[in-house]
Amino acid sequence: MIASGSLTTVEIENIYGEGACECPSPDSRMTLVFSQAKPFDFVELEQLLQSVGWSHRPIGKVRRALDNSLLKVGLWQHDQKFPRLIGFARCTGDGVLEATVWDVAINPIYQGFGLGKELMTYVKKSLRASGIRRITLFADPGVVDFYKSQGWILEPKGHRCAFWYAN
Amino acid sequence: MIASGSLTTVEIENIYGEGACECPSPDSRMTLVFSQAKPFDFVELEQLLQSVGWSHRPIGKVRRALDNSLLKVGLWQHDQKFPRLIGFARCTGDGVLEATVWDVAINPIYQGFGLGKELMTYVKKSLRASGIRRITLFADPGVVDFYKSQGWILEPKGHRCAFWYAN
Repeated sequence: MIASGSLTTVEIENIYGEGACECPSPDSRMTLVFSQAKPFDFVELEQLLQSVGWSHRPIGKVRRALDNSLLKVGLWQHDQKFPRLIGFARCTGDGVLEATVWDVAINPIYQGFGLGKELMTYVKKSLRASGIRRITLFADPGVVDFYKSQGWILEPKGHRCAFWYAN
Repeated sequence: MIASGSLTTVEIENIYGEGACECPSPDSRMTLVFSQAKPFDFVELEQLLQSVGWSHRPIGKVRRALDNSLLKVGLWQHDQKFPRLIGFARCTGDGVLEATVWDVAINPIYQGFGLGKELMTYVKKSLRASGIRRITLFADPGVVDFYKSQGWILEPKGHRCAFWYAN
C-alpha cells in the first residue's frame, strides 16, 4: 500500500468533490477518502466489482443505473496523481421511506482491515442524515455475519426476500 | 360492487392518463383500470394502505416517496364521477439493473378475485418493458405463498434479507 501523506478537509474537497471526507485508515501512511461526488472511471469500477465476484454488466447500463441511484459512494486510496478506487457501494430508493443497498465492494487486497464496516457506517450515516429510518439489502450468504455484526437484522423472521427473473 | 359499463381505450386514457389500460375484472359489470398517470388522493391512498395493515406514514413523506419512485400504479374501479382506488403498488430502483417492489395493496373487499395477481403481472410487465430483468421485494410471511405461486423465487437459499433501523 502506497504512502500518501495526510490531507486537509479543504484539499480533500478540492480533489474529491463536495462533502468528501477521510475514512479511518488501517495504515497511517495511507490516506483514504469517501466521496459521493468524484466521477467514476467505469472500467476501474467494473474491475473492482468483478474482483469481489459480481458478474459482468454492460458499462452503459451501469452508468445509467448509477445516474438513477439515490447514493453512490467511492472509497479512494488517495494519490495526488492517481487516486485508486478501492471500495464502492450504492443505494436505490425513494429518499424518504425506502433505501436499498447494492454493489458493496472492497478490493480484496484491502479487505480484512475493517474498511467494509467503515463503508457501511458511512452509507448508513449518509442515508440517516437525509431522514431515512430503515435501510434494506439482500446479503449473499458469505457476508451474512458481516452485516449481523453491524446491527443489521437478518430475515426471514417476519420477511422473506423474493426475486423475480425475466425469462 | 357497482356496475360501470365498459370503456374504449381512448376513453380510458382520457380519464386515467397516458398508458392506462383495463385490468381483467372478476365481474363483467365492473370496469377496472391500471394507471401510472392518474394522480392519487393521498388520504384515499393512505386509507387503502392502512386497510391492508400498513402502519400510518405522514402524507408529506408518502408524497415525496412516490415522486421519487420508479413506478407507481393505481388500480381503479371505474366510475364516471368517482373512480375508486382499490389497489396500489410501487417500485423503487435505478430503472436499469434493480427494481424493488413496495406497498402492494388490494382493498380487502376486493381480495380473493385474483386482482393481486393481475396487479403484480402488470408491475412485472411494466418493468420488463423498461429492460429490467430482475425484480426484488420483501414479502410479509402471510403473502409468501402468493408470490411463490407467481414464479417468484423465495430466499434465503443464496440470499438473506437484511434490515437496518435507525434508533
